[in-house]
Amino acid sequence: MNLLLLEEADFIAADRVVLRDRRLKHMQEVHRAEVGDSLRVGRINGLLGNAELLRLEPHEAELRVELQSAPPTKLPLTLLLALPRPKMLRRVFQTVATMGVPKVILLNSYRVEKSFWQTPFLEPEAIREQLILGLEQARDSVLPEIVIEKRFKPFVEDRLPQIALDTLGLVGHPGDFPACPRAVTEQVTLAIGPEGGWIPYEIDLLRQSGLQPVQLGERILRVETAVTALLARLF
Amino acid sequence: MNLLLLEEADFIAADRVVLRDRRLKHMQEVHRAEVGDSLRVGRINGLLGNAELLRLEPHEAELRVELQSAPPTKLPLTLLLALPRPKMLRRVFQTVATMGVPKVILLNSYRVEKSFWQTPFLEPEAIREQLILGLEQARDSVLPEIVIEKRFKPFVEDRLPQIALDTLGLVGHPGDFPACPRAVTEQVTLAIGPEGGWIPYEIDLLRQSGLQPVQLGERILRVETAVTALLARLF
Repeated sequence: MNLLLLEEADFIAADRVVLRDRRLKHMQEVHRAEVGDSLRVGRINGLLGNAELLRLEPHEAELRVELQSAPPTKLPLTLLLALPRPKMLRRVFQTVATMGVPKVILLNSYRVEKSFWQTPFLEPEAIREQLILGLEQARDSVLPEIVIEKRFKPFVEDRLPQIALDTLGLVGHPGDFPACPRAVTEQVTLAIGPEGGWIPYEIDLLRQSGLQPVQLGERILRVETAVTALLARLF
Repeated sequence: MNLLLLEEADFIAADRVVLRDRRLKHMQEVHRAEVGDSLRVGRINGLLGNAELLRLEPHEAELRVELQSAPPTKLPLTLLLALPRPKMLRRVFQTVATMGVPKVILLNSYRVEKSFWQTPFLEPEAIREQLILGLEQARDSVLPEIVIEKRFKPFVEDRLPQIALDTLGLVGHPGDFPACPRAVTEQVTLAIGPEGGWIPYEIDLLRQSGLQPVQLGERILRVETAVTALLARLF
């Protein structure tokens, strides 16, 4: 945790918060914070700043908060991701939040097992928990938007063309395709497939909606690694 | 598992292997392989190819193996890594194997907790297990070399200058440094710090031994994410 993220409910006054949960525990056990210490904080979806620890008791801490600086900018990106298996999904939520992705659309695909859609990790509270861990890591305060699209074809045919319009539309796909571009500055729409990849029918539909296949070499990457590698290369 | 990696001990003849362990289980439960099926295989530290499933019984499988193609090339890189915490270490072994790093030197650092050096995940068999998972993911057969250097100063002062000689020497470090270069073609020596980063004294010694600090932006990345992001950007 490189940043302590503050929720609206933590505020007892405009510049005061009281913490009682895992953040208190983290301050006690990892930071070993003492009264008078200054900590980096951020208000969720708001500014970053510092907080002075005013009072530290076994079950709660009170801090005086001063928020003054803007969070880091997000990537100019909409990320379409075939729903990963549950264990990977949690890590991917952290990774996209850390890397600064502002919007993720989770998509069905032929190679997404139906059972993956039943995971409790897709509950809004579970998603938020992982996103916050990722934001704390990166020292960002702005939650990415997560959209769930369980039907591939209607989404790709009816809504993707508008999303991809006037953006650099790309789909990461191993094979005989151009290499993923580097250091782009325009807005990007990027689709990343499931383990085993998109099927040809899906690639065809994604192409028709404005995404061009690009590859990262012959090595097959896990989804989390592919997300990081594509973003690090693109931006 | 995108590739079935074969050990020397699996071979009962020049072109025959018998499998009994997790690879058998994977063939049965994930691939749902049947006699006559063809599977992608590789010989550890050797060639890649295909295998035909000749016999499948509950406790063993026999395959006829044909090895003919070279594994993917490795990155022109020596990676110095401050020892990550044990849970992260296992994933990092997989990641470096998947990404094609040929040599990793695990290094002490002021911010590496002493207890990390006691982890069973540093036993040779445990390291090998994770590397093989990473190679299977990437469809590579060549194990990276893992070197353990528990003493920072003698290593950096006495041995690093020779390693870094005639290479592009870089140390990933957040701060007011040049951006990490892109699309390099020369041999690289890259050092990546622990959670919390290198301390100034360590950065000074790394500089004196030929590594220049470069940064990836203001977001603080987990070690595994930083490894992937730096490699994807460099190569």
